[in-house]
Amino acid sequence: MDLLKKFGERKHKFRDPIYGFIELNDSELKIIDTPIFQRLRRVHQLALTKYVYPSAEHSRFTHSMGVLQVATEIFLNIYRHSDHGLLSKEAGDPIGDIAKKLQILRFATLLHDIGHLPFSHAAEKLILQQKASHEQLGQHIIKHYPPIKEAIEERGIDTKIVAMLLDDKPLAEYFILKNIVSGQLDADRADYLLRDSYTCGVKYGEYDYKRYIQSFFLKENKNGQPQLCIEEKNIYLVEAFLMARYHYNLQVPYHRTRSGYDIALKKYIEHLKGENRFPEFVIFDENNNINSLDFEQFELFDDYSIFEMIKTDYKSDGNIWAKMLMRQEHLLPVFDHIKTIGGDNFLPYKSILRDLKDNGLKEEHDFFRFEKTLTVSKLLQKRDDEGDDKFPLGLIINDRPEPGNIMDYSNILSQLGKPIEIFRIYALKEHKETALELSKKAFTFFSELNDA
Amino acid sequence: MDLLKKFGERKHKFRDPIYGFIELNDSELKIIDTPIFQRLRRVHQLALTKYVYPSAEHSRFTHSMGVLQVATEIFLNIYRHSDHGLLSKEAGDPIGDIAKKLQILRFATLLHDIGHLPFSHAAEKLILQQKASHEQLGQHIIKHYPPIKEAIEERGIDTKIVAMLLDDKPLAEYFILKNIVSGQLDADRADYLLRDSYTCGVKYGEYDYKRYIQSFFLKENKNGQPQLCIEEKNIYLVEAFLMARYHYNLQVPYHRTRSGYDIALKKYIEHLKGENRFPEFVIFDENNNINSLDFEQFELFDDYSIFEMIKTDYKSDGNIWAKMLMRQEHLLPVFDHIKTIGGDNFLPYKSILRDLKDNGLKEEHDFFRFEKTLTVSKLLQKRDDEGDDKFPLGLIINDRPEPGNIMDYSNILSQLGKPIEIFRIYALKEHKETALELSKKAFTFFSELNDA
Amino acid sequence: MDLLKKFGERKHKFRDPIYGFIELNDSELKIIDTPIFQRLRRVHQLALTKYVYPSAEHSRFTHSMGVLQVATEIFLNIYRHSDHGLLSKEAGDPIGDIAKKLQILRFATLLHDIGHLPFSHAAEKLILQQKASHEQLGQHIIKHYPPIKEAIEERGIDTKIVAMLLDDKPLAEYFILKNIVSGQLDADRADYLLRDSYTCGVKYGEYDYKRYIQSFFLKENKNGQPQLCIEEKNIYLVEAFLMARYHYNLQVPYHRTRSGYDIALKKYIEHLKGENRFPEFVIFDENNNINSLDFEQFELFDDYSIFEMIKTDYKSDGNIWAKMLMRQEHLLPVFDHIKTIGGDNFLPYKSILRDLKDNGLKEEHDFFRFEKTLTVSKLLQKRDDEGDDKFPLGLIINDRPEPGNIMDYSNILSQLGKPIEIFRIYALKEHKETALELSKKAFTFFSELNDA
Amino acid sequence: MDLLKKFGERKHKFRDPIYGFIELNDSELKIIDTPIFQRLRRVHQLALTKYVYPSAEHSRFTHSMGVLQVATEIFLNIYRHSDHGLLSKEAGDPIGDIAKKLQILRFATLLHDIGHLPFSHAAEKLILQQKASHEQLGQHIIKHYPPIKEAIEERGIDTKIVAMLLDDKPLAEYFILKNIVSGQLDADRADYLLRDSYTCGVKYGEYDYKRYIQSFFLKENKNGQPQLCIEEKNIYLVEAFLMARYHYNLQVPYHRTRSGYDIALKKYIEHLKGENRFPEFVIFDENNNINSLDFEQFELFDDYSIFEMIKTDYKSDGNIWAKMLMRQEHLLPVFDHIKTIGGDNFLPYKSILRDLKDNGLKEEHDFFRFEKTLTVSKLLQKRDDEGDDKFPLGLIINDRPEPGNIMDYSNILSQLGKPIEIFRIYALKEHKETALELSKKAFTFFSELNDA
Repeated sequence: MDLLKKFGERKHKFRDPIYGFIELNDSELKIIDTPIFQRLRRVHQLALTKYVYPSAEHSRFTHSMGVLQVATEIFLNIYRHSDHGLLSKEAGDPIGDIAKKLQILRFATLLHDIGHLPFSHAAEKLILQQKASHEQLGQHIIKHYPPIKEAIEERGIDTKIVAMLLDDKPLAEYFILKNIVSGQLDADRADYLLRDSYTCGVKYGEYDYKRYIQSFFLKENKNGQPQLCIEEKNIYLVEAFLMARYHYNLQVPYHRTRSGYDIALKKYIEHLKGENRFPEFVIFDENNNINSLDFEQFELFDDYSIFEMIKTDYKSDGNIWAKMLMRQEHLLPVFDHIKTIGGDNFLPYKSILRDLKDNGLKEEHDFFRFEKTLTVSKLLQKRDDEGDDKFPLGLIINDRPEPGNIMDYSNILSQLGKPIEIFRIYALKEHKETALELSKKAFTFFSELNDA
Repeated sequence: MDLLKKFGERKHKFRDPIYGFIELNDSELKIIDTPIFQRLRRVHQLALTKYVYPSAEHSRFTHSMGVLQVATEIFLNIYRHSDHGLLSKEAGDPIGDIAKKLQILRFATLLHDIGHLPFSHAAEKLILQQKASHEQLGQHIIKHYPPIKEAIEERGIDTKIVAMLLDDKPLAEYFILKNIVSGQLDADRADYLLRDSYTCGVKYGEYDYKRYIQSFFLKENKNGQPQLCIEEKNIYLVEAFLMARYHYNLQVPYHRTRSGYDIALKKYIEHLKGENRFPEFVIFDENNNINSLDFEQFELFDDYSIFEMIKTDYKSDGNIWAKMLMRQEHLLPVFDHIKTIGGDNFLPYKSILRDLKDNGLKEEHDFFRFEKTLTVSKLLQKRDDEGDDKFPLGLIINDRPEPGNIMDYSNILSQLGKPIEIFRIYALKEHKETALELSKKAFTFFSELNDA
Repeated sequence: MDLLKKFGERKHKFRDPIYGFIELNDSELKIIDTPIFQRLRRVHQLALTKYVYPSAEHSRFTHSMGVLQVATEIFLNIYRHSDHGLLSKEAGDPIGDIAKKLQILRFATLLHDIGHLPFSHAAEKLILQQKASHEQLGQHIIKHYPPIKEAIEERGIDTKIVAMLLDDKPLAEYFILKNIVSGQLDADRADYLLRDSYTCGVKYGEYDYKRYIQSFFLKENKNGQPQLCIEEKNIYLVEAFLMARYHYNLQVPYHRTRSGYDIALKKYIEHLKGENRFPEFVIFDENNNINSLDFEQFELFDDYSIFEMIKTDYKSDGNIWAKMLMRQEHLLPVFDHIKTIGGDNFLPYKSILRDLKDNGLKEEHDFFRFEKTLTVSKLLQKRDDEGDDKFPLGLIINDRPEPGNIMDYSNILSQLGKPIEIFRIYALKEHKETALELSKKAFTFFSELNDA
Repeated sequence: MDLLKKFGERKHKFRDPIYGFIELNDSELKIIDTPIFQRLRRVHQLALTKYVYPSAEHSRFTHSMGVLQVATEIFLNIYRHSDHGLLSKEAGDPIGDIAKKLQILRFATLLHDIGHLPFSHAAEKLILQQKASHEQLGQHIIKHYPPIKEAIEERGIDTKIVAMLLDDKPLAEYFILKNIVSGQLDADRADYLLRDSYTCGVKYGEYDYKRYIQSFFLKENKNGQPQLCIEEKNIYLVEAFLMARYHYNLQVPYHRTRSGYDIALKKYIEHLKGENRFPEFVIFDENNNINSLDFEQFELFDDYSIFEMIKTDYKSDGNIWAKMLMRQEHLLPVFDHIKTIGGDNFLPYKSILRDLKDNGLKEEHDFFRFEKTLTVSKLLQKRDDEGDDKFPLGLIINDRPEPGNIMDYSNILSQLGKPIEIFRIYALKEHKETALELSKKAFTFFSELNDA
């Protein structure tokens, strides 16, 4: 209560279908009202997933507000359930500025997606020429975009600290904050699992949110260092959360149909790039660091911008990818294999790829491969910035004095810890017959081999 | 079961957050896949409501599929709960083609919004020069857009009948269908109350859907005509449904903040119209009927098109409305009065309007009025196409032989039957001081008068 | 946060389907664990409603915990949204003991139903001989049942104050608490509307809980007194809340079928009373005040006790009411009229009652009347303990300096303010023919009169 | 539609919080209204789980109606999605009597729990002297309890067939029905996972119901036999369903606190048995088959009956188990180990048990063990009545001609296929110190051994 009041009342209340209300203070609202933040309304959270789940129409704008909310709840619960001596010890900070830490966390989570390009991941590498990531764009914006910089500084906070939390580098002084923004606790995923499931109308990503946010706390380990922990009885919660992530990943962002559209989008963006149709909003220095960002251009560069180009190319009938993205044509899925489910199909995959080439089809022109390795268990991976004495997540076993490593206590988690490999082949519809025939041939061959 | 199978299996299943799944047959899917229907993905269901409720990001695409689903459920329940002799009598149709009627209904509901212009209502009058409505555009599309025409005709259905159901004119032969598409039962509203509440995260529009869809049936009235009826115990359901509509209307589409943006949008579209920046896609004949529609242009004319113009004008800094629509400035609400709540504030309204003019401010330039009369109770209004012997909705009182008029039995419904009048005044921010001073003056004057 | 910690951490967490978790401190848990509180597990919240809605199987135990939760949230929100000077002024109390007030409130709400008899209302008057109410039993228990008394006193709280909050008498010093326990804000109803709807699987009682709990605050009125207020925009919330109450009342506790079972239950309890089969657990003094309560007997006297008697009587085949309560027979509803819906049916009611007697049937033996007047709008009624300068609920109109009376601003609320009168007649099945014939006769007579 | 109508309209509609409405025909309602079925209202679905999750107050009555509903939906979906030739082939039955099969299924599911004793599993073995199971009681009731027998027979159905479906024996002719009632598809579990989660307010048992019910179909296998199948993309659904079962089991029926009460209940029932306080309602013949059942006694023998005995013993202060069941005392959990989570704790378990004895404590008197092996994956186990050519569940891999065995395709499922072993030790509170000391000693010993 008093903590919430410390930085002035959060008098701006927004309805949210996931959490009921999200409350913001004046500085946070100033950030929301900048054109660069409003731009997130025009960047879809799930890119082309709406071609698979029609109602996946939400944006990174609502998601960003949601992450701020989740992060706040996790933070307050850790504060409530941990030994306060330990809390202040962890950062060499007096307990007094817990409210300031919360404010840093809220800025960082609200702004964690501020640097995303149109259609999120599809365009990023091409447009930024692999020289930077959206996180780095975001850090630049936080530090240099005047109205955001001002809003942060008027709370007595250094923009560098907020920006650093978007980074992947160690940050011992802000151990909990780091874990919430982009570490074990990851408010980002905690929000999008719920929000994407809600909008899509699926159950894949649902987990027990009310219990989740209050299950984590700090405890001293053998070496007197704070260790992020849960109680033994909550091991099921972690299992369920990671199962949700696993199912969500394979059925929402990596749904087979969506992957086909992702190829089309990538190809189309290459085409635009080739024609120099993107605004040149980033300038890199000789070390490939962001030298400057043209904010005026970036404020207006969004999904709509790309879609207007698609319309133009569709009308002039000049580009097959524009047609596909208008949903007038589809790539044909020829092969789909996900390694977790089933024995080894890698040989047929290789075989089909080879045969397609042997039949005169050109990769990236007539047929396309989609390869992806997913890791479900970010929650369970050790981070570089954590001392050797820390587990990814400590498990408090009732009868033992010190936290154990959660990975030692769950067969389900050790399964979910394995990487999931996706191998897919798509072809242009004009090669339908050839592609399907080769696919069938390969399967028969290896099937008979197996039965032999 | 068998009824559902009659026109081939609905093998295309889409997830929907409101109904779980929506199932389509091949012809319905063909319609969905046309560019003119895909365009609805780029027409927001709630226009600028997302500036008030951030998560109101859904489109007329998902809503249209939803209406098809609701309509199907209502139809099947009426069929199930009514006397079949009466059903066939009502239309001079053999019971045999009930499946065909259902298919007509599904086409009509799927396509009921196909003619909507960008941002729905804002642009309609201006762009169509008041010569046509979006329903008439829709009817034209249904009858003349080749792939839709074909999809309908391959089911042995005349496109004229489908188009007519979008009309407001009588259609005795399709009494139930008419009532479901745009009459007492109105699947359109039944869907958007739920869907808009779901996306916004509010409760205003929620009602008891599962009970609603199964509460209606036909019964013979005194004159042997079929009368749409509910049982006495369901009077509360109707009350609750209409209360939901009333609260939804005032807090979602007619929310005070949204109305301010609606003014900005209207002014901006006038500006675009003045500069001839819209495509000329409709040609009217001498009688102001639609002569032809340029489908290629219409397929691509959507919310995104307008927003790209906003961006251009915003960048060039040339238009205050473009700025407002980028949310960089706001109209200032000066006066807000909704007649249902409270005594008569009409005199202060008139007084403020007069005083603003007397102080040299120009209406439609410095200040703006927003006037609207809402009717909640479509469900309770008599339609012209219904015989004199029919009530809007018949109420079966247990102990009486014939249906009574529901309006005679509920004080709540008679309250909800009254029109709701909204009077609002907004001003440019530069006139803030003057406007607020005049507003205060008027209130003090009339307040003292009241107390006197 | 700090407020929550003041009285020790609420370390006992219970899952609740309505609020997620309910957290209790040690003293509260001690109360829960007493046999007299555990007894509430064996008193159904909705008595025989489960014969109408099968899943209405929950008890006053879970409801009582729920009321504690709602009350806490309302209290904390009023504290958060009101001027703190006013808060401390209202009771002549320093702001410092806000945590103590919260604890008083939590005890009072947790214990508000502790004195309920089996099947709640049915048995109360008979068993207590109209000399006391369950609230008075409850007050006695709070003040005298040792383990509860101790649990309260160990928090430094006087049991008299907790008991007084269950009373209907004025309590100026605890203005807000009083309003939350049994006044305008009524956490009791706020919980059961949600909980009963949830278990029954209906929507009747649902309202916007998250918004409700944060909509109330205190504001100074003309005379410098604190006035309970809401903002103008929340008038719809109050309308929706009271509509929910109205629909819930008529369709859950006063459902026609349930009323028939209520008659059977009342008759059966009269029968038990006649045979002296109840434990004599209350002794009244000469002024009809509770002198003593036999706690050992009361701890075990619950719905199960009555049901075991029903079983005995059912087996011995000696009592028709026991049979009905085993659901082997039903009372026949002959007449049902609810005044809000419809014109005046009072004359047929009177006429049927007279005719039944004229035909030799005896009231309370062959046929039974059920009469009830409901008031939906407790929220809108002025309480005696509130000064003349206070409205039941103040409405803050944006442009006015002082709160207005909400009743002046909503036609819906003024409808809901009217009492609802229920008139019903039931008959034994053996008189079915006579009863239905007389009913029909009366209706035809008055129907023709109306049409004449 | 027509299928639903075939056996008369299901005009009796009951509200249900899980499915919205459950509809019954006249014969089904007759069964519901028998005293033996009404008795299920007084048998709690989750026995003493409400001492852990307070709101787990529902009964086998509502669950039984729920299973009927789930079974109906699964059946109709299999019918809809399978080749009809195969459907009729599977049972040598003409497709014509599909409606009759559905009716058999509905009777069997509605009655599947009719033979449950008070507090379900606790009393069963003791009271029935291990000679019979509740399923066998149920079969006897179906075949011999007159009003149920009549209700079934009036639909032209042989009670023997309905009874057989409760059995575990093969039943080739009713392959699908068998699978739905007590086989791979198990409507019983499908309902209670949802219903118990709903009432408890937890997420453990939630799965994607709408997708689940429509995912199963029959397909011909190599040998021309019908094989129950799902599509490859639904493998995640099965994973999620079984994860839900796994989490639900460990956290609801086998929650540590509940197991302690289960021991108390078992001990108390032994005590009652020792004092011959149970009605003798079953008579076995020389082969230990049920000879007769005293229906009049069975109709009234329920949770309430036992609880009245608890009250009596509690009042007379004569039995420690009665006290515990009134929640006045608790067994102390001394050791808890679940084998899925973590390394092998079996040695400490053995060691503590031995040490307790060595310290003079007597098992079943001073301390108690709770051992249980759970199998999550009924869905994946081969049944005896299924030919060698059938998999438990066939997986249709897109590119292969015949169904494969789902177990070959999911690492998660193979984990969930392993049995889960629970080992727990509880002690009387008076032995608290000894027990905890021995427990600590054992852990230190084995802990040091591990670290060595």
